[in-house]
Amino acid sequence: MPVNLAKESAANAAVDEQIHNDIHIIGVGSGSTIVPAVKRIAEIVHKNNLDLICVPTSLQARELILSNGLKLGSLAEYQELDLAIDGADEVDEQFNCIKGGGGCQTQEKLVAVCAKRFIVVADEKKWSPCLGTKWTKGIPIEVIPVAYKLTKKEIEKQLGGEVVVREGTEKLGPVLTDQGNFILDWKFDPVKIVNWFDVNRTLKLVPGVVETGLFVNMIYKGYFGNSDGKVEIRTNPTMSS
Amino acid sequence: MPVNLAKESAANAAVDEQIHNDIHIIGVGSGSTIVPAVKRIAEIVHKNNLDLICVPTSLQARELILSNGLKLGSLAEYQELDLAIDGADEVDEQFNCIKGGGGCQTQEKLVAVCAKRFIVVADEKKWSPCLGTKWTKGIPIEVIPVAYKLTKKEIEKQLGGEVVVREGTEKLGPVLTDQGNFILDWKFDPVKIVNWFDVNRTLKLVPGVVETGLFVNMIYKGYFGNSDGKVEIRTNPTMSS
Repeated sequence: MPVNLAKESAANAAVDEQIHNDIHIIGVGSGSTIVPAVKRIAEIVHKNNLDLICVPTSLQARELILSNGLKLGSLAEYQELDLAIDGADEVDEQFNCIKGGGGCQTQEKLVAVCAKRFIVVADEKKWSPCLGTKWTKGIPIEVIPVAYKLTKKEIEKQLGGEVVVREGTEKLGPVLTDQGNFILDWKFDPVKIVNWFDVNRTLKLVPGVVETGLFVNMIYKGYFGNSDGKVEIRTNPTMSS
Repeated sequence: MPVNLAKESAANAAVDEQIHNDIHIIGVGSGSTIVPAVKRIAEIVHKNNLDLICVPTSLQARELILSNGLKLGSLAEYQELDLAIDGADEVDEQFNCIKGGGGCQTQEKLVAVCAKRFIVVADEKKWSPCLGTKWTKGIPIEVIPVAYKLTKKEIEKQLGGEVVVREGTEKLGPVLTDQGNFILDWKFDPVKIVNWFDVNRTLKLVPGVVETGLFVNMIYKGYFGNSDGKVEIRTNPTMSS
């Protein structure tokens, strides 16, 4: 399973470098790369008897934290986290990324915003010269259910492209987020985007939009695993260490 | 009951002027002034056998539409409304307003955005030289529950003032909106606000914020009733008829 080795290597490299005595509260992301990351965090915490509280970004993350015997916290208790570790669907060379293939982008962004450092762990294939060239399913946008038709129209009108309501296979009709909202996937022409900050702001200002899966220049460091187990570590040059 | 006469007079004046043969789909707001408005709409619709569809802004509005024997529609069916009629908690001389004393500001804004014309009906006491001088409970802001502490901190940091989580009396803990979210009431110093457009944009961009009860220059016309039954009709000079 070369993809799993890539993800596991990235997760281990990140955790080994980032989790230590001075880290007390972390945000735990969602997705397949977070599974080995939480496992590794638990190993280090239990081996070194660290006092670490984990704030989840999803119901999946919550279960991972509990099943690995880690301490659970929440954003209601902690709004300042030492670190957040998460996956990503695509990361560009300016350290912007798309998240939300798993539908958890809203809580993921809230946790990332609260963290002093936001780091991502991913397969090297997620590293991309330009958002939308590797992840072609679009930018996930959480919207309140009553507004989905309006927001779809409004986003297409303001930004072009095509907006699709995400549907699942295990329940008929739209996928519901952990907050009970819908997800729109906005498919865009990568060539036409010049400023992701503006795109994100435009999307968020559309009535009915709760949050977007577009993370503009929020990543401090990325750990990207290759299929042979080697990890590329990339640090955002615009952020101070 | 002088306040009721004021509200009823405003509602009747607005409905009599705005509801006619060419109006087919309307948005129906929420609040105490909407009760006589819907009653009057129903009288006109039934008397003249009009074909009118009503899109509600809340569960309260939905019940009003049904109990008055009017046709119910939704934003999923209609994203272009001929008119929306709603109440307001305070309207300033630039036709900005605060809404959401009743907690329905998110759906109210969605419906208002979809309407060719957005009109308000209110007691004359809601007309104000400056937002925050008559309505002092703050601007209602709907937020997703998991984020409320973070959004409270972030709003106070970015805009000053004080943010309070709205609590009810009929259920312990925070009030839940029709979408299942929380409401924060942001109390501000009116003197310090120079640009409501910027304030609204800043609020909406805070992670966790779903929508605000600040309606910036959205009103086409306001009908304000006095306690003696006289109605002041004010038209927004910045909008074409």
